[in-house]
Amino acid sequence: MDENADAEPYAEIVSGTPDNWGVWGDDDELGALNHLDPDAVLRGVGAVSSGETFTLGTPIGHPDGDPMWPTRDDADHHMLRDKGHFEAGKVTREPYGGWENSDDLVYLYNHGTTHVDGLAHVWYGDELYNGFDAATTKGGIERCGIEHVADRGIVGRGVLLDVARHRDVEYLDAGERITLEELLACASEQGVEVRRGDVLLIRTGAMDLFYREGADAFYEEFETTHGGEPALDEAGITYTEELVEWFDEREIPMLATDTVTAEQTISETTGTRLPLHPVLLRDLGVLISEMNRLGDLAAGCAEDGRYEFLYVGAPLHVVGGTGGPMNPIVVK
Amino acid sequence: MDENADAEPYAEIVSGTPDNWGVWGDDDELGALNHLDPDAVLRGVGAVSSGETFTLGTPIGHPDGDPMWPTRDDADHHMLRDKGHFEAGKVTREPYGGWENSDDLVYLYNHGTTHVDGLAHVWYGDELYNGFDAATTKGGIERCGIEHVADRGIVGRGVLLDVARHRDVEYLDAGERITLEELLACASEQGVEVRRGDVLLIRTGAMDLFYREGADAFYEEFETTHGGEPALDEAGITYTEELVEWFDEREIPMLATDTVTAEQTISETTGTRLPLHPVLLRDLGVLISEMNRLGDLAAGCAEDGRYEFLYVGAPLHVVGGTGGPMNPIVVK
Amino acid sequence: MDENADAEPYAEIVSGTPDNWGVWGDDDELGALNHLDPDAVLRGVGAVSSGETFTLGTPIGHPDGDPMWPTRDDADHHMLRDKGHFEAGKVTREPYGGWENSDDLVYLYNHGTTHVDGLAHVWYGDELYNGFDAATTKGGIERCGIEHVADRGIVGRGVLLDVARHRDVEYLDAGERITLEELLACASEQGVEVRRGDVLLIRTGAMDLFYREGADAFYEEFETTHGGEPALDEAGITYTEELVEWFDEREIPMLATDTVTAEQTISETTGTRLPLHPVLLRDLGVLISEMNRLGDLAAGCAEDGRYEFLYVGAPLHVVGGTGGPMNPIVVK
Amino acid sequence: MDENADAEPYAEIVSGTPDNWGVWGDDDELGALNHLDPDAVLRGVGAVSSGETFTLGTPIGHPDGDPMWPTRDDADHHMLRDKGHFEAGKVTREPYGGWENSDDLVYLYNHGTTHVDGLAHVWYGDELYNGFDAATTKGGIERCGIEHVADRGIVGRGVLLDVARHRDVEYLDAGERITLEELLACASEQGVEVRRGDVLLIRTGAMDLFYREGADAFYEEFETTHGGEPALDEAGITYTEELVEWFDEREIPMLATDTVTAEQTISETTGTRLPLHPVLLRDLGVLISEMNRLGDLAAGCAEDGRYEFLYVGAPLHVVGGTGGPMNPIVVK
Repeated sequence: MDENADAEPYAEIVSGTPDNWGVWGDDDELGALNHLDPDAVLRGVGAVSSGETFTLGTPIGHPDGDPMWPTRDDADHHMLRDKGHFEAGKVTREPYGGWENSDDLVYLYNHGTTHVDGLAHVWYGDELYNGFDAATTKGGIERCGIEHVADRGIVGRGVLLDVARHRDVEYLDAGERITLEELLACASEQGVEVRRGDVLLIRTGAMDLFYREGADAFYEEFETTHGGEPALDEAGITYTEELVEWFDEREIPMLATDTVTAEQTISETTGTRLPLHPVLLRDLGVLISEMNRLGDLAAGCAEDGRYEFLYVGAPLHVVGGTGGPMNPIVVK
Repeated sequence: MDENADAEPYAEIVSGTPDNWGVWGDDDELGALNHLDPDAVLRGVGAVSSGETFTLGTPIGHPDGDPMWPTRDDADHHMLRDKGHFEAGKVTREPYGGWENSDDLVYLYNHGTTHVDGLAHVWYGDELYNGFDAATTKGGIERCGIEHVADRGIVGRGVLLDVARHRDVEYLDAGERITLEELLACASEQGVEVRRGDVLLIRTGAMDLFYREGADAFYEEFETTHGGEPALDEAGITYTEELVEWFDEREIPMLATDTVTAEQTISETTGTRLPLHPVLLRDLGVLISEMNRLGDLAAGCAEDGRYEFLYVGAPLHVVGGTGGPMNPIVVK
Repeated sequence: MDENADAEPYAEIVSGTPDNWGVWGDDDELGALNHLDPDAVLRGVGAVSSGETFTLGTPIGHPDGDPMWPTRDDADHHMLRDKGHFEAGKVTREPYGGWENSDDLVYLYNHGTTHVDGLAHVWYGDELYNGFDAATTKGGIERCGIEHVADRGIVGRGVLLDVARHRDVEYLDAGERITLEELLACASEQGVEVRRGDVLLIRTGAMDLFYREGADAFYEEFETTHGGEPALDEAGITYTEELVEWFDEREIPMLATDTVTAEQTISETTGTRLPLHPVLLRDLGVLISEMNRLGDLAAGCAEDGRYEFLYVGAPLHVVGGTGGPMNPIVVK
Repeated sequence: MDENADAEPYAEIVSGTPDNWGVWGDDDELGALNHLDPDAVLRGVGAVSSGETFTLGTPIGHPDGDPMWPTRDDADHHMLRDKGHFEAGKVTREPYGGWENSDDLVYLYNHGTTHVDGLAHVWYGDELYNGFDAATTKGGIERCGIEHVADRGIVGRGVLLDVARHRDVEYLDAGERITLEELLACASEQGVEVRRGDVLLIRTGAMDLFYREGADAFYEEFETTHGGEPALDEAGITYTEELVEWFDEREIPMLATDTVTAEQTISETTGTRLPLHPVLLRDLGVLISEMNRLGDLAAGCAEDGRYEFLYVGAPLHVVGGTGGPMNPIVVK
């Protein structure tokens, strides 16, 4: 890997961790999603027991606001046609025999609702995952765009680690760290094991706070500033060599959380912001999914005591997308 | 049902067909999706055999164009940040240790890519599905918005009827009709049965034409005008009492096709445009999904001889959406 | 005028004031802009002396934010092409001999920057200016859209009343009222007279506060809530019968201010919000222009002692616009 | 000037022509607009005689389409609020006493309606006007953005050369060339002289064709392809050393036309596309304004025999805009 001057601080921090470059060929743009082969899919299907389903996508364009990294904007949803158009005589449907219709569009940040980060979302040392030149992002993502993930889909066995319930709190406070040790203790308490190829879901309770107590309560808890810009300070796992090696060894294809930033925003171990993002996305090719609504699923798991399930997610097939909005489904 | 003067021609045409109003209560906004209970989900899961997956979403913002009803526009995809921002010194990532990132957004018609129509997309007689007032659509969908479908998800057993292969053609020509009799013959030839609660997928080959031969070839085949406006003239099933009763009796929760309009656009039986839409969406509460990429799935089915599978779809959770973009996944 | 039940409180309040309905014919959609005939234009031209020019439009998409009514959003400005596209080989300009170009677009609230309100922006009693049915706004403005103003242009003699300077303050505080008496005293002190047909510009200093001390200082001074929604509480003139009659008698075609709301937001005289808007726009057909950058112009006027000038404004020609963004020019 | 390899063909073609780099200082971002000083403004004001006004902006979002370079899209105009919202109970205006309002936004290509190209719209040899690095355009225009033009305004004496009327045709056919000799003959026939500092307007009749006979007639006449992409082939002036020197010597601040491309699209003299753009914008700093509605103005000039007037234009103040939509006003 070629590190330029700017990237060195980060590159130095993570210099001891593994990567998956070349593992699936020099042209690979899927990364750890390659772990989800048909056998992995069948393991996911095999985890189904009750047939109960849960969708994880958060509302888009909710009148009370959407959870959002502060430099992004809420989605806009525009009605293009409704009953008013017909009342005002602005549309006729004669060839249709008179039935009427409505239409609409969305103006949506790809990272502004429940989504999966593509492998080209993050880089350092001027190189993306698998060594692609970061300059290929200029004017549109050319390598590792989200279309590859959209085309493949994310289907496998999922495991929820409900850290909030494990700690017996409604939600983790701003800035709190979850250690690997705690993850494993949580799994153990839940009677579940993170196996090779499992999609890992971690619940902090943040989305539940947003939707139960409202946007103001959420931002009051988590909003802060970084370098003069509005930002969030969320709870989560963070960078350690041990954790990264565990992700690698467990062959985790994707990390999904109910937070906006997926990890402890201001890392307790590195002092920098979001150090797991590049290690996961760019080095290991591990996808990251953020802003998942995990509250109902967690309640269901607590009830039946089963924290493994079939996970199915497929982002919108945005050509050259840096990420893709999606509404994942869990089948228990 | 209260028919107003404008709607009478259509209302008269379909006056002999059943509806599902009140079947799931006066407040129901899910319609035939109610058929997809945990048992139906388990039947879908039970149809899995190989673990192969197929995603059905079409590319969004493809440089060669997206398939589109002519009065809608292709999606716009805007890069908000790429490597160029960093080269030009317009962004710094100091608190991050210097790693860099890309960001983007989409401006997207909800019915302008693979999507599911919500029950409020279509009405006549001033009433939506279950008798809700069509005036509730004014200024934003209040009843039967796509958020209900997004929250529930569409998970069950799916069956593909590959009419194009059944006819031994690459794609059905503009305006051709598929009869119920042909659907049943196709199923029989394929050795599959449409059972109660199955998601019904019908392949005409239209999306394959678009993606194999290009947008020009597609529009040359299908583009036409209705009442002075540019329109499409596609192939598909169309309204008959018998067909509607079959959908009702089979408890089909959703019809999905690889066309833009889901049915024979200019109906051979009624002479009007798209007469199945209101009967399915508004009367029976049956969802409709359009522009599905079915070519690879069909090839897979032809290869292993199995036309049933687990179908999983969840539209984006657009609050008050008339429809929702989605990237469905099939697990064989 | 037909008042419906909902509108009665407002209709009662303003029942004693005049209107211009029918004055320029039953089909008129220009209102008081009709006062700006060629003679009025020549009066404006006659006010030119030095040839100095001032533009009044505020920046759109400023990195530090744009002044905005809180329920609207800042403009988004998207680069569609820049040098990065060429560096990354994503565009070629062969037929051009190799020269390169940049391109962009804006996503812009029509009332989200310096603009003029169209006559269809506001109504009561279910009727717009000149008695047009308010239902004609459904699904797009059919009568009194901003295209009529855009087609005509706003050209005439303008007069600035610099109330902030008159009071010897940098800006008027939130909620302060400017009376007609004060306007006249200000004019008198400035040695200028508001004559028939003059475009009236009133300066409170609000935009200067925004651009000199920043968005935070601006919102700290003016932000409030109305009925649970974020709102502003600005300074300005407000409704009295006397003031409305003065506008009518002076044949003022347009009121322009350096505030977001153009008038005392929470009216001291009526207790309601923005009571001048409907009286001016809907009854008299007087246009309203908001968020004008008046600081430089005011300094220029103070320097040369001349507060009259040629005013030239033409909003974007948005078909069916409720208002139109514009960048007015003053020629002194 | 530093020419890179890619740019050489163009750079060679125009190597004999003058530039204005450094003329107004190394930091100048206004270019030839500097010619429009207060004296020039007063010369424009002195050209007023009748007080008649003409606006030149074309409709935005017209139901029958907007004139457009084929790779751009028509503007979208979205209603955000109308009477339907109130009828459906989705908005209340209690604090307002019950008066109601409408609201809207536009999604608009800056070069997709009547506009002025900023000096950063075009470059070659990796340098913008005045030698600024073309890399400063990456991720947003940093130098020579349209905000400088918006802040200054374009006010001066304008002269219309009505070439269509001079040729006694309704419009110039696709691909036709207008020579400098013809411009001067046209001026002479019209009894007008292009003086130093005049804004130059050239009419070909193209916009009149669009608005009189419709979009289809317009594109039938002018649409073509360049290098596989849809394009236009319009009539206009084109590059010669003599013409460029005339622009320079006449100190023309801006060229405005009623075409989409402002010049003979496929140059008869260079064989390349649009060779005047970089010479005017990047070398001389001369602005270019396109898609001006000149038909009514031309008729007025023909009637009174006066082809000079006051020209006033100010684009929207888009920060970092590559161009700015505007609705210019002519005062005769």
